[in-house]
Amino acid sequence: MSRTEKRAVVLTSGGLDSSTVLAIARNQGYELFAISFDYGQRHRFELDAARRVCEAAGVARHVVFELDLRAFGGSALTADVDVPKDRTGDEMDAGIPVTYVPARNTIFLSIALGWAETLGAFDVFIGVNAVDYSGYPDCREEFIDAYAKLANLATKSGVEGTGNWAIHTPLIAMTKAEIIRAGIELSVDYALTHSCYDPDETGRPCGRCDSCQLRLMGFSEAGLNDPLDYADPPRG
Amino acid sequence: MSRTEKRAVVLTSGGLDSSTVLAIARNQGYELFAISFDYGQRHRFELDAARRVCEAAGVARHVVFELDLRAFGGSALTADVDVPKDRTGDEMDAGIPVTYVPARNTIFLSIALGWAETLGAFDVFIGVNAVDYSGYPDCREEFIDAYAKLANLATKSGVEGTGNWAIHTPLIAMTKAEIIRAGIELSVDYALTHSCYDPDETGRPCGRCDSCQLRLMGFSEAGLNDPLDYADPPRG
Repeated sequence: MSRTEKRAVVLTSGGLDSSTVLAIARNQGYELFAISFDYGQRHRFELDAARRVCEAAGVARHVVFELDLRAFGGSALTADVDVPKDRTGDEMDAGIPVTYVPARNTIFLSIALGWAETLGAFDVFIGVNAVDYSGYPDCREEFIDAYAKLANLATKSGVEGTGNWAIHTPLIAMTKAEIIRAGIELSVDYALTHSCYDPDETGRPCGRCDSCQLRLMGFSEAGLNDPLDYADPPRG
Repeated sequence: MSRTEKRAVVLTSGGLDSSTVLAIARNQGYELFAISFDYGQRHRFELDAARRVCEAAGVARHVVFELDLRAFGGSALTADVDVPKDRTGDEMDAGIPVTYVPARNTIFLSIALGWAETLGAFDVFIGVNAVDYSGYPDCREEFIDAYAKLANLATKSGVEGTGNWAIHTPLIAMTKAEIIRAGIELSVDYALTHSCYDPDETGRPCGRCDSCQLRLMGFSEAGLNDPLDYADPPRG
């Protein structure tokens, strides 16, 4: 790593999107500081995926930050609520799903912001996407813009003018197929990633939750095969 | 508690300011949901104080949320950096102190936001104060205003219009003496609170860190005696 290399903090879940973001940030010349969150999610296999992905991406450091959002509940990902399966595209488009975790990206970005400030990094990357998953309020551009403004008011570096915060969302306007093609070009190994909200006990993806369906549709549209082994055969 | 009572989430450190805020929110008719943070602060005695204060205030629920900000360091409150003592008022006014914890209030508000959304509470109270402690960027009105805007973009309730978020900062323009007088009128028992950044092993306040000094000056200006027993005699 060169001394003049700029540092970036990258939110990394182990999923397809954030693994692509890691590769994009690296390709832009950043030294990578990855952060994942162990928040009590039922699909904790994604944390193992995050470790594999970070190693493959050659990050300078990977932190798995623990915070137990199960204390609050309110989501199918953190409480005893069934993850929806086999939903149609129209059903997925019809509002904010039960897998919404209240304020999740706000919380994750805030912790990333704190870490970034101690690192002297003012570039934070997050793999939000407004195309294939418009249901989550904290995946939209308005939210990200408001967050960047907040970051400059919230921090010592922002107030003293020693750092100008940028929240990078390279995937925000891409389809899942475009994301996958971009990742393949940057040599992302999607066999290392995990997307399923409700994997079986061995970590195999279900193939039927919204996240699996969107992933499979993305590979299909990109004309590629998903390297993962699914527990249930994909729909359709 | 009446059924129509509105719920509020109150950030509660166990300190003088947030204990006053609890009493103010209660006096405004809110049902109180208090949250404290065990973030690896060296002055963890404040969490015992938070429990005592919440019990005295009759909160509906008190959550102590764990998140270890020592993983990042960068502050005298979470890393092995000396807490400054015996600083003059001019020294305290001269910029952001080493006790600044990067993005702390942003992180705390975000976790409070997530909890509040699951509770159907859209009123969050925080005891920030811009008068006696202007050093912290995340205690200023501009920051709080930007946060409220963000909350309405970040959450399901904000986006769907089912909740309009408000971040209440009743102390923001008050002097420490005014805060103490307001609390005394609302029967706050300041003997239950803890303000010191660097207490001795029994939890006794040092009397010399910025936080102790500001507290003592506040009591002095209010013409009252601080009920706490200090390890060192106060300065001056």
